[in-house]
Amino acid sequence: MKQKVTPKTLSGFMELLPAEQLVFDRMKNIIEETYRSFGFVGLDTPVLELSDVLLAKAGGETEKQIYRFTKGDNDLCMRFDLTVPLARYVAEHQNELTFPFKRYQISKCYRGERPQKGRFREFYQADIDIIGSEKLAVVYDAEVPSIMYHVLKKLGLERFHIKLNNRKVMIGFFESLNLSEKSSEILRIIDKADKIGFDNVKACLKDLALSDEMLEVIMTFAMKQGTVAEILDFLKKQEIENEKYKEGVAEIELVCEAMKNLGVDENAFEIDLKITRGLDYYTGTVYETFLDDYKNWGSICSGGRYDNLSGYYTDRKLPGVGMSIGLTRFFDLLKDQNLIQPKAQTPADVLVLPMGDEALLYALKVANSLREKGFNVQTNASDGKFKNKMVYANKIGVPFVVILGEDEVQSQTVTLKNMQTGDQSCLSYEQLPVELKNVLSENSLKTTKVIRYFAE
Amino acid sequence: MKQKVTPKTLSGFMELLPAEQLVFDRMKNIIEETYRSFGFVGLDTPVLELSDVLLAKAGGETEKQIYRFTKGDNDLCMRFDLTVPLARYVAEHQNELTFPFKRYQISKCYRGERPQKGRFREFYQADIDIIGSEKLAVVYDAEVPSIMYHVLKKLGLERFHIKLNNRKVMIGFFESLNLSEKSSEILRIIDKADKIGFDNVKACLKDLALSDEMLEVIMTFAMKQGTVAEILDFLKKQEIENEKYKEGVAEIELVCEAMKNLGVDENAFEIDLKITRGLDYYTGTVYETFLDDYKNWGSICSGGRYDNLSGYYTDRKLPGVGMSIGLTRFFDLLKDQNLIQPKAQTPADVLVLPMGDEALLYALKVANSLREKGFNVQTNASDGKFKNKMVYANKIGVPFVVILGEDEVQSQTVTLKNMQTGDQSCLSYEQLPVELKNVLSENSLKTTKVIRYFAE
Repeated sequence: MKQKVTPKTLSGFMELLPAEQLVFDRMKNIIEETYRSFGFVGLDTPVLELSDVLLAKAGGETEKQIYRFTKGDNDLCMRFDLTVPLARYVAEHQNELTFPFKRYQISKCYRGERPQKGRFREFYQADIDIIGSEKLAVVYDAEVPSIMYHVLKKLGLERFHIKLNNRKVMIGFFESLNLSEKSSEILRIIDKADKIGFDNVKACLKDLALSDEMLEVIMTFAMKQGTVAEILDFLKKQEIENEKYKEGVAEIELVCEAMKNLGVDENAFEIDLKITRGLDYYTGTVYETFLDDYKNWGSICSGGRYDNLSGYYTDRKLPGVGMSIGLTRFFDLLKDQNLIQPKAQTPADVLVLPMGDEALLYALKVANSLREKGFNVQTNASDGKFKNKMVYANKIGVPFVVILGEDEVQSQTVTLKNMQTGDQSCLSYEQLPVELKNVLSENSLKTTKVIRYFAE
Repeated sequence: MKQKVTPKTLSGFMELLPAEQLVFDRMKNIIEETYRSFGFVGLDTPVLELSDVLLAKAGGETEKQIYRFTKGDNDLCMRFDLTVPLARYVAEHQNELTFPFKRYQISKCYRGERPQKGRFREFYQADIDIIGSEKLAVVYDAEVPSIMYHVLKKLGLERFHIKLNNRKVMIGFFESLNLSEKSSEILRIIDKADKIGFDNVKACLKDLALSDEMLEVIMTFAMKQGTVAEILDFLKKQEIENEKYKEGVAEIELVCEAMKNLGVDENAFEIDLKITRGLDYYTGTVYETFLDDYKNWGSICSGGRYDNLSGYYTDRKLPGVGMSIGLTRFFDLLKDQNLIQPKAQTPADVLVLPMGDEALLYALKVANSLREKGFNVQTNASDGKFKNKMVYANKIGVPFVVILGEDEVQSQTVTLKNMQTGDQSCLSYEQLPVELKNVLSENSLKTTKVIRYFAE
């Protein structure tokens, strides 16, 4: 016999056991259903792209991490995000798509990073974007974070904040101070305020050769705190005669108003003038999302408005707005903090157990009739002792078991056992689905929250 | 400005436009929901595996096609099927899993083949397997094809047949003829009968130096046609004193009986002694599935029973039974024959259209309230003419539109338009979800069949 190969996975690749996988899938499903409830269509672009297409824009750190190789005549890359494939897709199919084009994609991306806690080489991104042709109304800047709000609520999260800002406001502000040339740099520094602290921000800004007075003006503006209404009021009262600034303020105001109408709790979002998302790619509204009790996780869901999605591929102007959840990383953080609740190793509502060969075919029939009524039903038809089958039922964590022996076959009845309480009842074949529906409504996987997130 | 890069995908990679993607996703979803309804848990193994682990068994043609490369110190492969990753997973986690272990996986696989019609380099496989520890009851051999039967029915297919055989029957039969040494070769030839014809099978068998008499015995046996009952009768009447043969016949009989109890129409499966699945990997029941009107497609769903899933990784005996649908190829064939029915470019049930800025916030509120009631709702809140918005509604193929103008805002009403009939009605804000539920029940994407497959 040949020597055995040790079965193992690569480090940096998340692989889950059944109970956790079911929670992960449930989260993915909730995200997808919510995206779809806003009419977004799911795309499924290839994992492999031609390197010259995928790397049209990339450079520096990102490029080093990419899984790139040749096969035959092709120079290939595994995608490292879902934005570049979207840019390629929209440019390639621009004449076949209807704009505004609303798409989501929940797919794996790849980066050959040095593996470390919280960094994955294979990870799910869950993106939504709305792409316009030539122009895209500002109200869509409200739709995207509202979708994310509903996603997080449906996942069971309570204490979180979506932070908004608008880069036009910031750029206009710096223009009014005659600091246009330095504005990109200043924005990148301010963006780090929550991480490095105010004093360090000041120190970094000072390195840009700003006067103490100027520094004070910038800090007062960017660090402004208050409710949405207060900050809007503050912004409007500034005596800044700059068109870009005014446009930005009007946009923030509309976005906040629209979000309320889209069902977002006013307490769940705020304007934070420090948030600028570093990248010059973003041109208007920007978003980050923080859990109140786990701010050190950083933003779990970010994005913004951009002027030109596909500039590397087409002359057509394709502005858009989007946000993304780093699902693998988020799941890992939740798991680490013991905030997910694996319940069972099976999606089954009920396990049907025949005792002895006489009950085998009857068991299959009972299982089939329950499935026809919409239940998820597993059978364990292995030979073996009844006790072993109950051990199996306990291990897989199924909430209900139907036990079928010789008596049940003859009388065409079933014994239904509640695995949590231990209660057993004898029912007719016809009663079973009715009773099961009643008892499941309180016990189904479908109705319990996947994330346990306490508000203390 | 830098020169534009031509946006394109690699050949051999299927990428769909929204309307087709929605059909594909619906098919994937039906398959997944059906797998789950039998209590199977979905696995999600990494796309990349260590080459020495993934290729423990592979060789020949398969190995040549594999996307294999190095990154840092790692020699990596993209998976080429879902069976080897399952073998690795079960061996790696054998002490954490509960057996029988029922898993499905619907994931992309990769083979760097020369692209040609119907061959894809990136393709979905939709696998189910049941893995036992040391042993696995025969009744599970009935569960797997029954799941596939329900999948195909739910996809809208009508005229198809699942063909069963059992390799023990065939091997026992050849043992009784003292042809054990040649049985693998004979089985491989017989398996091709439907492709190459009886005469060619005979010619090939003759090349194995079989006597004319022997040839006649084999052909009469393997080409036997009839109903399940007739073939079972035929098998039982053979005077073959071979334990393996008898075991195989008993297994087929139980599998057929159990399938009926699992809700499989007796006319949808048959015993076909020619089917042997070539590979010696299979040790008992084997399956293939053919569409009656497209037999030239070959089997769309195949599999079988195997004795030892993870022999390359562990000494523990892990017998199993599984089947697989090549989803990408199947979708491509259906599309080619115009058998799929793309209906819309959005999963939305309804599109909410504000006319003018006054109605914008009201539109968001109406959309939000409909989503809270479980509808999929898209808004088109772009500036622009009403006519353009109706063009948009037509293009995306949404079944219903809610039109909101100044009048509607003031009276807190809505105008609901049926896009198919053109009928419009004015409703109160409260009436809208009730009315929508009524009209959608006949029009929802969720209730229409994805595959149009006529029985002529």
